[in-house]
Amino acid sequence: MTRFTVPRRIRFSDCDPAGIVFFPQYFIMLNGLVEDWVTQALGIPYHGLITTRGVGLPTVRLESEFRAVSRLGDDVLLRLGVERLGHRSLTLHVDCVSAVDEELRMTIRQVIVTTSLATHRAIAMPEDLRQAIEVFMGEGG
Amino acid sequence: MTRFTVPRRIRFSDCDPAGIVFFPQYFIMLNGLVEDWVTQALGIPYHGLITTRGVGLPTVRLESEFRAVSRLGDDVLLRLGVERLGHRSLTLHVDCVSAVDEELRMTIRQVIVTTSLATHRAIAMPEDLRQAIEVFMGEGG
Amino acid sequence: MTRFTVPRRIRFSDCDPAGIVFFPQYFIMLNGLVEDWVTQALGIPYHGLITTRGVGLPTVRLESEFRAVSRLGDDVLLRLGVERLGHRSLTLHVDCVSAVDEELRMTIRQVIVTTSLATHRAIAMPEDLRQAIEVFMGEGG
Amino acid sequence: MTRFTVPRRIRFSDCDPAGIVFFPQYFIMLNGLVEDWVTQALGIPYHGLITTRGVGLPTVRLESEFRAVSRLGDDVLLRLGVERLGHRSLTLHVDCVSAVDEELRMTIRQVIVTTSLATHRAIAMPEDLRQAIEVFMGEGG
Repeated sequence: MTRFTVPRRIRFSDCDPAGIVFFPQYFIMLNGLVEDWVTQALGIPYHGLITTRGVGLPTVRLESEFRAVSRLGDDVLLRLGVERLGHRSLTLHVDCVSAVDEELRMTIRQVIVTTSLATHRAIAMPEDLRQAIEVFMGEGG
Repeated sequence: MTRFTVPRRIRFSDCDPAGIVFFPQYFIMLNGLVEDWVTQALGIPYHGLITTRGVGLPTVRLESEFRAVSRLGDDVLLRLGVERLGHRSLTLHVDCVSAVDEELRMTIRQVIVTTSLATHRAIAMPEDLRQAIEVFMGEGG
Repeated sequence: MTRFTVPRRIRFSDCDPAGIVFFPQYFIMLNGLVEDWVTQALGIPYHGLITTRGVGLPTVRLESEFRAVSRLGDDVLLRLGVERLGHRSLTLHVDCVSAVDEELRMTIRQVIVTTSLATHRAIAMPEDLRQAIEVFMGEGG
Repeated sequence: MTRFTVPRRIRFSDCDPAGIVFFPQYFIMLNGLVEDWVTQALGIPYHGLITTRGVGLPTVRLESEFRAVSRLGDDVLLRLGVERLGHRSLTLHVDCVSAVDEELRMTIRQVIVTTSLATHRAIAMPEDLRQAIEVFMGEGG
């Protein structure tokens, strides 16, 4: 599977009173990762998709496992791959591993649909987005 | 299934540029719901569990479906039930429905383990917590 | 000064690795307090102002002092008063005190302007909002 | 004034239903900027200060002006300078400007104190931190 990887340092604002990542913060990181993937790896400006083109990318299904804790100051890698490309949906597989020894911290399977932001209803995936994802998926081959 | 229910109004800070709840905010609401359930329904002060007793309640597995959008100003109900009580884990089922017509907005299945905050390792669930959960589960019967 | 007061328990998600409120979380609480004040005390649905009427209430100036820490589980009061009502701006004075002994935790002076959400430019304060604020300010007299 | 500058793209998670940065998010960005400054510019690992050395850097006073909106996708610069170095406090001046044309978006003056995380009381600034700040301040001269 082709992967898009972004390094990230665990920040003070990511952590809870136990000194480890507060799990909802992983999903905020995930959202940023998807933004960077769309803009940088697919070459389609994410903010233009939302703002100018009125295309939403809401999550409709999420499965996540938290295997080991990440602490303040930890250097991690966030890695994104595409598991399945549908007509109007997309299944991503994301994990977070230690940048030091690749210890697995958490995994996410996320199903995203393309919607109209005017109606919040699913629409066919824009053709440029689909093609860019196909190219991305083929790059590992 | 016995349920613990809390009403919640969707706030400005919960919403994204599409004017609907940003999905990680649901998990922050969920965390607050678990806090309120432990303190109010189980009768065990949540903050004492964390701060004084050094017991953590981290999430190890999460499955979530987002069925319909919640908008700024919506009145919703967050409802929590216990699906399974293990030796050192707990499976919760939570949903969020419209307070107006019970339209289902999202569901969560969450597996929590009890840990030592000193080591972040799983420990047997404290006896008072287990007993309070058993009482809670039996209340619907 | 007339005051609008809301009780709040400090939550896990409000706190940082030091176990105390992470200061940006106070401003998220503040935003919720302003929402509740507009809707409940002024009788003008906040979400309708934003969503239907396209009126924004952005902050243009903020001064804050943090006097004592608030910890996980603390019961606090958030109290809001109006310091000055201008043609298109509003100066609020907010503080957070312990609900137990009124120990002062933090104070905020916040200047809000009314804007058009279409242009993000200042507009005259809507007449119903102005009148409701005048009534609120007079209630203490 | 010597300045430490970090580029930042405005993310979906930074923005509110008006499509602009939700002001508390600026303070979360600010906290990350201070972390990066301590670690990268001063050469003192921020997380070690907190975690290993038990030194807190809470904010005791904050003044902020919001001059122009930042929108989803905007590229901005966050710039930090030291206004005053006290015995146990530090006054920072931070601003956020457009990376395109340096339009001023917001300014912050922030007073930080050094505290013991065991007692949350102010302590003398650790000597290595003070010296590193003096070197930083002198670099512009």
